[in-house]
Amino acid sequence: MRAGRITVSEVGPRDGLQIEQRLLPVGEKIALVDRLSATGLTRIEVAAFVHPRVVPQMADAVAVFAGILRRPGVRYAGLVMNATGAERALGANVDDIKTGIAASDSFNELNVRMTTAQGMQALDEIAALVKGTESRLVGGIATAFGCPYEGPIPISRLEMLFEQLVALGSPEIYLADTTGMANPASISRTVEALRARWPDQPIGLHLHNTRGLGLANALAGLDLGIADFESSIGGLGGCPFAPRAVGNICTEDFVHMVHEMGIETGIDLDALLKAATYAQDVVGRALPGMVMKAGKASELHDKAAPKVKVD
Amino acid sequence: MRAGRITVSEVGPRDGLQIEQRLLPVGEKIALVDRLSATGLTRIEVAAFVHPRVVPQMADAVAVFAGILRRPGVRYAGLVMNATGAERALGANVDDIKTGIAASDSFNELNVRMTTAQGMQALDEIAALVKGTESRLVGGIATAFGCPYEGPIPISRLEMLFEQLVALGSPEIYLADTTGMANPASISRTVEALRARWPDQPIGLHLHNTRGLGLANALAGLDLGIADFESSIGGLGGCPFAPRAVGNICTEDFVHMVHEMGIETGIDLDALLKAATYAQDVVGRALPGMVMKAGKASELHDKAAPKVKVD
Repeated sequence: MRAGRITVSEVGPRDGLQIEQRLLPVGEKIALVDRLSATGLTRIEVAAFVHPRVVPQMADAVAVFAGILRRPGVRYAGLVMNATGAERALGANVDDIKTGIAASDSFNELNVRMTTAQGMQALDEIAALVKGTESRLVGGIATAFGCPYEGPIPISRLEMLFEQLVALGSPEIYLADTTGMANPASISRTVEALRARWPDQPIGLHLHNTRGLGLANALAGLDLGIADFESSIGGLGGCPFAPRAVGNICTEDFVHMVHEMGIETGIDLDALLKAATYAQDVVGRALPGMVMKAGKASELHDKAAPKVKVD
Repeated sequence: MRAGRITVSEVGPRDGLQIEQRLLPVGEKIALVDRLSATGLTRIEVAAFVHPRVVPQMADAVAVFAGILRRPGVRYAGLVMNATGAERALGANVDDIKTGIAASDSFNELNVRMTTAQGMQALDEIAALVKGTESRLVGGIATAFGCPYEGPIPISRLEMLFEQLVALGSPEIYLADTTGMANPASISRTVEALRARWPDQPIGLHLHNTRGLGLANALAGLDLGIADFESSIGGLGGCPFAPRAVGNICTEDFVHMVHEMGIETGIDLDALLKAATYAQDVVGRALPGMVMKAGKASELHDKAAPKVKVD
């Protein structure tokens, strides 16, 4: 049931950096993306094309796209929320135009000042712009496993959004646990309900570790045969409209877990750990990633010098 | 396959406090245990009866046992490593005499200056002392999923220790991932191998979150039908002989996860969260528990005041 090989989609440069207090210079963002693309990652969400007044951290999205290396085999994604964003992203030659609508009206209004229904209209406009270009439209559903203002989301709300994304040809549809409210049982229930109607539509998971459940939820996804996961290097992230939300699941901790389980990713974990250290250096704060502190499980220690101070 | 109700065994006062730099006064230890026993927890590991020169944090084990409330329905445990410890623990009227031997010689030698074979002999001596008393012997196998000095542990080593513990009548046998080297696949493999030979012996899991895998490993255990888990309030813990090891899985985060999944524990999560805050106060450092920071998934927020600073 578990896939033997999965795709890990890095979202740190977008979902992570958008909430950092420190505004990173464009050169550091480019260097981070280039280090990530050198690890074997094949999907990297580089930036969001959103209003610079609302998210100043993403004001230089076009410049970042202009500066990064374009390694063959890697798809570089940008997040857009409306037609203006889609035009900018297409102008920047973005491979994957990613977009998401929250299943909760409250959350979508706070996030992008649109009801869910208005978001669906914006999505049609975005799709019309993407159609016929070299770029792909890749959609996600935010607050799929619960909204911090409304609580659990009725499955009918997810079906409504899922149906639209299927019709628009989204190659994967990401279910996003935007504020870390999912649990392994709700992930199974939700994925199984959507698969019952759309058995052939690939589903991806976008998970946060707000309540420590990130990798347990990822395991629930793996056990459902899900083969596409979004994560952030170092565990960067959070959300300005999600109370006390913490970052996405940590890319290198997740890759470490699946490699230990014998699942392939095509990613060089050592290179990824170096990229995580670099991310930590540029944001200037300790990131939540644990393998970069503890080392890989396969890394043995010298018995003669065991009394490393426990911190 | 998942149990509808599980037992959570709190080990924070022992496995957690044994590595804290600050030596807690006996009154604070007693207060912590009493707060824990008021939450609905039915198993609490209160202290270790080990040499006070080696583990000064546990020197007052007898005084702690003398001071705690003995709530009906709660079993209070003490860890012992040899006959001397067992005598002290029996003198303190400990309900469950817990003991563990590392499957790795290297680790057992560093931990208790005995080879695994010598540890097995000590176990027989402990068992002889416990026999005929009101106390129970409860055994565990340390480094069951790997040793930081030796790497993976051959299943034959686990079988050797498991066989002895079965013969001694241990009501559960804990498999301990002492330094956080397990993964969901190795947990399944190991539990299934032992069950193939001892299908009726209840197995418990003692997990650490060293590489972020704690709750994913617990989920793997739940999926195997395991119904007994050890954890530490607030995520207290570590091990002086385990390089860079961090704490056990966090009791309140684990209880939050299983409650969200619809699994019962008999524990009042709100009371547990208060006990976690108390534990954090007395040790005087931020503990890794996440639900005490983020709040429960079921706790909704006011849409009018959403811009809580993300940290």
